[in-house]
Order: sequence, then structure tokens, then C-alpha cells
Amino acid sequence: MHEFDLIRQIDSFAADHEDVKVGIGDDAAVTSSHAHKDVISCVDTICEGIHFKRSTLHLSDIGYKALAVNLSDIAAMGGTPRYYLVSLAMSPEWKQEEILEIYRGMNDLAERYGVLLIGGDTVSAQHDLMISVTVLGEIEKSRSLLRSSAREGDVVFASGTLGDSRGGLDLLLSGGLTAPRTEQEHALVGVHQRPEPQLTLGQLLKESGCRIALNDISDGLSSESWELAEASRVCICLEEEKIPVSENATKLFGNETAYEYALTGGEDFQLVGTVAKSDWPAIASAAKEKGIRLSAIGSVTQEGAPQVLMQKNGERTAIKRAGYRHQ
Amino acid sequence: MHEFDLIRQIDSFAADHEDVKVGIGDDAAVTSSHAHKDVISCVDTICEGIHFKRSTLHLSDIGYKALAVNLSDIAAMGGTPRYYLVSLAMSPEWKQEEILEIYRGMNDLAERYGVLLIGGDTVSAQHDLMISVTVLGEIEKSRSLLRSSAREGDVVFASGTLGDSRGGLDLLLSGGLTAPRTEQEHALVGVHQRPEPQLTLGQLLKESGCRIALNDISDGLSSESWELAEASRVCICLEEEKIPVSENATKLFGNETAYEYALTGGEDFQLVGTVAKSDWPAIASAAKEKGIRLSAIGSVTQEGAPQVLMQKNGERTAIKRAGYRHQ
Repeated sequence: MHEFDLIRQIDSFAADHEDVKVGIGDDAAVTSSHAHKDVISCVDTICEGIHFKRSTLHLSDIGYKALAVNLSDIAAMGGTPRYYLVSLAMSPEWKQEEILEIYRGMNDLAERYGVLLIGGDTVSAQHDLMISVTVLGEIEKSRSLLRSSAREGDVVFASGTLGDSRGGLDLLLSGGLTAPRTEQEHALVGVHQRPEPQLTLGQLLKESGCRIALNDISDGLSSESWELAEASRVCICLEEEKIPVSENATKLFGNETAYEYALTGGEDFQLVGTVAKSDWPAIASAAKEKGIRLSAIGSVTQEGAPQVLMQKNGERTAIKRAGYRHQ
Repeated sequence: MHEFDLIRQIDSFAADHEDVKVGIGDDAAVTSSHAHKDVISCVDTICEGIHFKRSTLHLSDIGYKALAVNLSDIAAMGGTPRYYLVSLAMSPEWKQEEILEIYRGMNDLAERYGVLLIGGDTVSAQHDLMISVTVLGEIEKSRSLLRSSAREGDVVFASGTLGDSRGGLDLLLSGGLTAPRTEQEHALVGVHQRPEPQLTLGQLLKESGCRIALNDISDGLSSESWELAEASRVCICLEEEKIPVSENATKLFGNETAYEYALTGGEDFQLVGTVAKSDWPAIASAAKEKGIRLSAIGSVTQEGAPQVLMQKNGERTAIKRAGYRHQ
């Protein structure tokens, strides 16, 4: 690989903007800050063989997802992503054109949300490929939507449909990238390969000015509900029949599996949150106006020891803490 | 490994500060910005087997260096580091106590410079350990010291002594971590294991208000001089006898090797820069006052096609572009 060539080509993805004082090419990036805004920052790493396989994602999808994971975190704060930095560690087998294809996937998503590449590094690793993306964003001072804001009586809501990404992964694991697929199957595969970070919804929720607890669904509804319950010290009760699973998933995998995937599948990058019952109708209709599906899926039943319950046919059972809590 | 335990213990390294609105434990960190300051950001990744080996660094040194590399980048901009985020990918062999020891090493350095841990993630990898550190800092608007500021007639300067880290690595590769060592040897090993990012000097240079080009020496003086020459489009002429090599290195490795290590060894994390000849005396004496060694090592001979020359015994020879340019 010609390292200088590679960097020159990566540089070509870095767009000009008046807020970027120093972009790629110096020791660090320098960007303007704004007096009435806080800085939001997050970093997420995806590793070959663990978080992605080349048998289920195109190279550009790998890049897309590496950035999407982080934009989803910014969405879950109600923020606006502005910049990203990429740290890529790769084994010698990786070719320059393959790395550029990964950058192209990041760029596809970045361009849609006006997020600018401002820096990073490319280093050698002994094995595999690892992509670590840092995203910097901004939000009006003290307006961040936190996991700890849930209160007794709140409505619990979720966006989109859940479990589709896990269903898409199933199809990819069995049929690979190129199997002939129905429209339904394509839809699920698309959610797995190019999930949409819910930035529009996150900002809509922030702009409502309501007290809202919010979390993104990277590890499945069960785990993310637990995070809300723990951060807010509340008991959350979900109602199974209200959990939004897609027609595609239920048709392809049956009802039981579709709900299981919604609860534990992860990587949907939808949002789950809570809002006061009195504010829910306004929030629901604001989302509807923007064409965003938002479902009431349960309620915060009491404050105190964190707990997540599932109500089904009038009976409540405890949902165990599962999945992995990222820091 | 008990993941939740690990995260709880990592959380304990996150210090409180009024500028940290949201630290570890939500989707992203939220920090205050200041109207008269720009945000500086950088990310660097180090990989097991490539950038570090457990045979040459203690676990805490690995953490220390992962952060030091980034603080050095901030120093080379004249900035002040404020926050760091850590993304750690590790294979199953790594034990919780080992990971914590790495965090302790980061914390040792972070505490000295008041840099606060605000986020990150810990994920699984198939092989090895990889640490990606993002540092956010700040600098007064439009005061960043860039590589592109060198002009004809400038004095070229370097801080500290160069090549010591490479010398220390030699000793570690031959004798391992525990070989009995002389005081001289210990000094070199110490530079390799715990290099000091030149934050005090970087800020002193920025505060001088002079036009200064600056770069940190991560890849050896040769490569870093080339970066200055390319970014500024100038010819830099170094004078070998003025390059600061340590007495320890020359005694242990001989003159020729000591200079070679200074030029190509890397990981000294000293600074190399240029300043107008008329400003040099004031800069030199300001550094001396702070107890910082700063040496004039050459000059910018002309503007135009980038070039780096080495003058030795009255003769000038071209130094080839070597080393790896990080983005």
C-alpha cells in the first residue's frame, strides 16, 4: 500500500467549512466553538470478526456503520453532530482500495447529515481491521436529553420498528451478501447494513423542551430499557403487544422470534425514551408530522430500585439485565 | 471478566469538574465550550505487537503512552488538553486487572496535566489489545501553532534531547523489563516508557505571540522536519552537530548511532519548530527560564519546493522523506 497516496485520497473526503480552522494535515484539528452551545463527544470502535464480518457487510457498509453507531449516540442526546475523526488499524492484508471504500461508506452518511471529517490516523495492526470513530457535536447549553430523566408515570416510547437489524443479520449469515432476496428480505438486510441514526427525532425531542429521558438502541430494547431504569432509578414496564416489530420480521421469522429480536437483537439504532404522560400527545403528533413512527410501549410504574418488567396477557414478568453496557 | 465491575472501576478514574456536564455513563459526554476558545481534537491508536509489546512496557506504561501520544499532539498546537475518551478493544486473554492497570497509567499522566476522562467504550477483539485515545483541548481563537508557518530565514529549533526513546527501546529489546541497569540506561528506558509530552513548552511558544511553526517528534527528527518543510513549502537545513543528543545515548551507543536514533528513532515526543531569527533570542531565554532545553538546530534556507538538508563538516546532503505521515 502507498501510504501517502492513501492519505491524499482520504484527505479528499475532508470538506471545507468556516468552522474548521485546521482539518486533516496538522497535529490536531481545530474547530470553532459557540458560546451558547455545549460540546458533545463520543467514540465507538468496531472490530472485524466481532462487530462485523466481510461476509455480511460490503466494505462501504462497514464504514457507514462505524460512523452510524456514533451518530446514534449523538441523536440519543438530542444533539447535532458536526465533525468526525477516524482511527483505523489494519493488518497488512488490507488493500488501499478497500480502505478507501470504507471511507466512502462513512462519507455517504456524513454528507447526508453535514458531518465533516477533520482528522484521525491510519496505523498497522497484526490482525484484522478495527475502526474507531470519534464524533464531536453540539447542543444548546443544558439541553441534553439524559438517561436519568425518567419519572414515575412517564410514557415509555420507541421509534421505528425493532429487531429488523437482527433479522437482516440472520438472512445475511445464511445467504451471504449475494443471495437472491425478496423485497421483504431486502428491507431487513438494508436495516442491518445501513441503519439510520435517528438524528431528526433526537433533535425534535430536544426542541420540544419537555423533560425527556432518551437512549439509543444499540444492544436491544431489553438492555437499553435497563439502562434507562438504572440511570433514572425507576421501574419500567413494557407491554409486549405494543412493541413495534415490523410486518417483514413477523412474516419471515414468526411472532415469537420477531419479539425476541426486538428485545435482544440490537443494532436497530432506534431510540427509546420516556416523557410525562401529559406531554406524550404533543410529542407523538410532532413525530407523526415529520413522518417518524413513534410508539408508546409501556410506562414508568414507580421510582426506586431499577427494574424492567414485561407485561403480556395481563401478566408481568421481570426482564433480566442482558447485553453489554458501553461506558 | 465481569464487564460491569470493570466499567464501575473505570468510572472511578473520571473526576468531577464543573465543565463536565455529562461524563461517563450516558450516550455521549457533554462539556462546556468557551466563546473565546477553539476546540482542539485528535485521536491516536496504538496496537499490541506493532506499537507496543508487553516485553518492553509495563501495563501502566502502555496506558501512559496511549495518552501521551495525544497530549503531544495538543502540545504541538500550543493548546491545553482538557478531556480524553478511551476506546479499548481487547482479546479474551486480557484480564480485568490488566485493563485497570492500563487505565491507571493513563490516569497517572492525566492527573498531572488536569486532563479529565469523560467517556469511551470497551469492546471485544479477536486478537491483541488496541487502545484508541481521543483528546479534546482548547486554545485561544486563531492562536494554534501550525506546521505551515515556517518562512525563509527562520531558526529551526528542537526541545530536549532526541533519540533517547529509541535507545531505551534497544535496551528493553535486549534485556527485557527486569534486566539490571545503570543509571544511564534507566534514564533512556524511562524516556521510552514514559515520555513527557511538551505541553509547558507548547503553551509557552503560543503565549509568546510570535509566528511559530511547530510539530511534535513522534517519528524521528527527519520525518518531522519533512512535515514542516512540506506544510510550509520551504527548505530546511539541519546542522548535525547542533542536534541535541544526550550524553547517555552517545556513551551507550556511540556518536553515529546516537545521531541516527535522533533522526529516525521517533517516540521522543519532543517538539521541533521554526521561529523568525529576530524572535529566537527571546524564545530561547523564555524556555531557559522554565528549565526547558531548547536548541537551535538549523535554519529555513529558502521557500519553494520542500526539502530537508543535513549540514555536516561544511557539506550539505539531502535527507530522504522517511517515516510515516499520520493524518
